[in-house]
Amino acid sequence: MPADTSEPAEPSRQRGTYAKGIARRQEILDRAIEVFAERGADRTSLRAIAREVGVTHAALTHYFGSLEELLVAVYEESTVPARQPSAPAEDATPVEMMIKSARINRAIPGLVQLYSTLVATALEEGHPAARTFATGRFTRLRARLADIVRHQQDEGRIRDDIDPDAVAALVVAASDGLQTQWLLDETAPQHEALALLDRLLRPAS
Amino acid sequence: MPADTSEPAEPSRQRGTYAKGIARRQEILDRAIEVFAERGADRTSLRAIAREVGVTHAALTHYFGSLEELLVAVYEESTVPARQPSAPAEDATPVEMMIKSARINRAIPGLVQLYSTLVATALEEGHPAARTFATGRFTRLRARLADIVRHQQDEGRIRDDIDPDAVAALVVAASDGLQTQWLLDETAPQHEALALLDRLLRPAS
Repeated sequence: MPADTSEPAEPSRQRGTYAKGIARRQEILDRAIEVFAERGADRTSLRAIAREVGVTHAALTHYFGSLEELLVAVYEESTVPARQPSAPAEDATPVEMMIKSARINRAIPGLVQLYSTLVATALEEGHPAARTFATGRFTRLRARLADIVRHQQDEGRIRDDIDPDAVAALVVAASDGLQTQWLLDETAPQHEALALLDRLLRPAS
Repeated sequence: MPADTSEPAEPSRQRGTYAKGIARRQEILDRAIEVFAERGADRTSLRAIAREVGVTHAALTHYFGSLEELLVAVYEESTVPARQPSAPAEDATPVEMMIKSARINRAIPGLVQLYSTLVATALEEGHPAARTFATGRFTRLRARLADIVRHQQDEGRIRDDIDPDAVAALVVAASDGLQTQWLLDETAPQHEALALLDRLLRPAS
């Protein structure tokens, strides 16, 4: 992995400059995203990816460390805001925000499958990169949604007799779980169930 | 795989009788369950399992077809009612039933991880055994919970203005998703979120 320095490194015949290294890493990552979209992320190897991307196994290890870290980088690169068509509206409820974000992710080939694989990997022993990714995503997402719940409770748009942290965890779980059910079986009532949760969270009218 | 016949087959020097085959399959399966509990199910191979179980790769393929089919068999064998300490009480709500079943599964080493791996595998292309397993589990579980919702709506224990199929899908998703969040981070409010959902589904008192 390139050293974290703001000074440009001296050119080196082995690796080129730091800026070149960053560009090369990005180039490999962009190509890896295409490869995963075509092949899927399951039970592939760093060696097979290197072949398809057109780099050596050593180069891939140099830039990403392991297959697991490459998978995390592919997922994060695919979900950065710049790659997403538009942010959810400010006044969306937490459930509406998750619906929108799930729709955007579903449009990127292989992304939902990659997410499931990373979470399943995180649950197994001995996968620190996947675990850091999954734990971090859930922690940040719950905190962000809980803030929105508090704000919308103050505005009278969400019931004020429910715990914002519990609501946030429930909304994330429902969104992830219903996405899985729907991907396996399009007759699963994903939309109905999310609309129901949205309704249950509103104050009785 | 042994032929499906109720007539006992002629003894054969290759495989022994049908009954012997069944017993041998069960013996391998029991040992495989122990191996998975110790090692985890991720990115292992049929060959490595065969070595640990103490059978040949050919024998394992003969009885289970593929690693994927063996993983499904391990999961199903580990969750058959006979292996579970006690069935949920008849008058439990759907959320309470899922809480109880999650607690039982969590006590079996590696089982929740194996479940996540099977579901993630099912979402990828080209894994018919995992897909049949995951789709079947969700379909049966939703149907069973929806029946209970209808019954408890008639009894006035669940709100009667909500769709039983949507409730069932929501409860399964919440249970699966919250279990994952909690396994990654024990500060995730799994119990609070499930208790909240249970409360939201009850009629206003």
